[in-house]
Amino acid sequence: MSAARGKFISLEGGEGAGKSTLLAGLRECIEQRGIALVQTREPGGTSVGEAVRAIVLDPGQRGLAAETELLLMFASRAQLVREVIEPALRAGQWVLCDRYADASYAYQGGGRGQPVSRIAELERWACAGVTPDLTLLLDLPVAIGRARAAGRSDADRIEVEADAFFERVRVAYRERAATEPDRFRVIDASQSPTAVLQAATLALGALIGKSKP
Amino acid sequence: MSAARGKFISLEGGEGAGKSTLLAGLRECIEQRGIALVQTREPGGTSVGEAVRAIVLDPGQRGLAAETELLLMFASRAQLVREVIEPALRAGQWVLCDRYADASYAYQGGGRGQPVSRIAELERWACAGVTPDLTLLLDLPVAIGRARAAGRSDADRIEVEADAFFERVRVAYRERAATEPDRFRVIDASQSPTAVLQAATLALGALIGKSKP
Repeated sequence: MSAARGKFISLEGGEGAGKSTLLAGLRECIEQRGIALVQTREPGGTSVGEAVRAIVLDPGQRGLAAETELLLMFASRAQLVREVIEPALRAGQWVLCDRYADASYAYQGGGRGQPVSRIAELERWACAGVTPDLTLLLDLPVAIGRARAAGRSDADRIEVEADAFFERVRVAYRERAATEPDRFRVIDASQSPTAVLQAATLALGALIGKSKP
Repeated sequence: MSAARGKFISLEGGEGAGKSTLLAGLRECIEQRGIALVQTREPGGTSVGEAVRAIVLDPGQRGLAAETELLLMFASRAQLVREVIEPALRAGQWVLCDRYADASYAYQGGGRGQPVSRIAELERWACAGVTPDLTLLLDLPVAIGRARAAGRSDADRIEVEADAFFERVRVAYRERAATEPDRFRVIDASQSPTAVLQAATLALGALIGKSKP
């Protein structure tokens, strides 16, 4: 008997939105239900992907073209889908991913101005039809997110962008959520971590209900 | 007064075809004419590109998906076009590049089976319309090339492929040349290095004639 296909949950959001805290909480929540979980991240999650991550976040790569950044992000993603996400889902495991294709629409599309049609075409073949069952978007005014993140050391190449960049990222994320309301759950990330986790747990409820007998 | 736009020459060919020897000869030939030359290579030629090269040629990356490889090659290429090739051509310098977009049609297309339409679409926006003025294809039966290359140490991730892979690469290269006969010059690489250089120098003649007063 083959296991039922696992569920794929992606977590999206800008700087200082509280993704790391929520990931830990979600992981605990899912594993307590006895569900085998693979947690991964983008860019990264594979040997190739982590090498790509090192390039893309390196503040020394100031001259990285928007086209190059887009292609690198999808290179990491194409490998992650084939090496990690799809095999796990097929084996009945759940996958919790810190950012996925929506991040390219937000950062390389909204932020860097790469055309949506170009991103959609890359997604079509690079992601091989693997789409999240649930995408949690931690939405936060840019000023609040940046203030929260200010205490962190060593901003990476993307974190050093101007506020206008992150405003465009936020708008693009919200537009994605509006066009796919069934897949997205937008969470107000200005709430306390406990309230954010509660909102995310509610969204998980339906998925867990479907997969447990 | 702005300089006349430089010429872009790419060199293509399989394993053991004598690209390195020819590159050195061509470089000398061009520079002796007083033409400023930028020599570069793919994947590589920029900080990002060399990082991509390290990933793509690493024999440890056995599980690299064909889609990932294609995206990485175009990431390197997109950066090389914008950071090196286009600025040099605009400044009136010539560019001599060890492999360019045709290599993706041959290796990721012919070799790995990625659709031509996919490669053409990536080329359309990643290369920003920068096409070689002349492409020299060093054509050689696979068995001869592999015999020549056999003495080299440490085969990379692509060099360890089977003969059938390189046969497909050769066929795809020849098909590219057949569809763009004005741009391509196919050189029989089973000749001596001197004869190969002479054939390449003849092909250069027209370009040099056009650009020198």
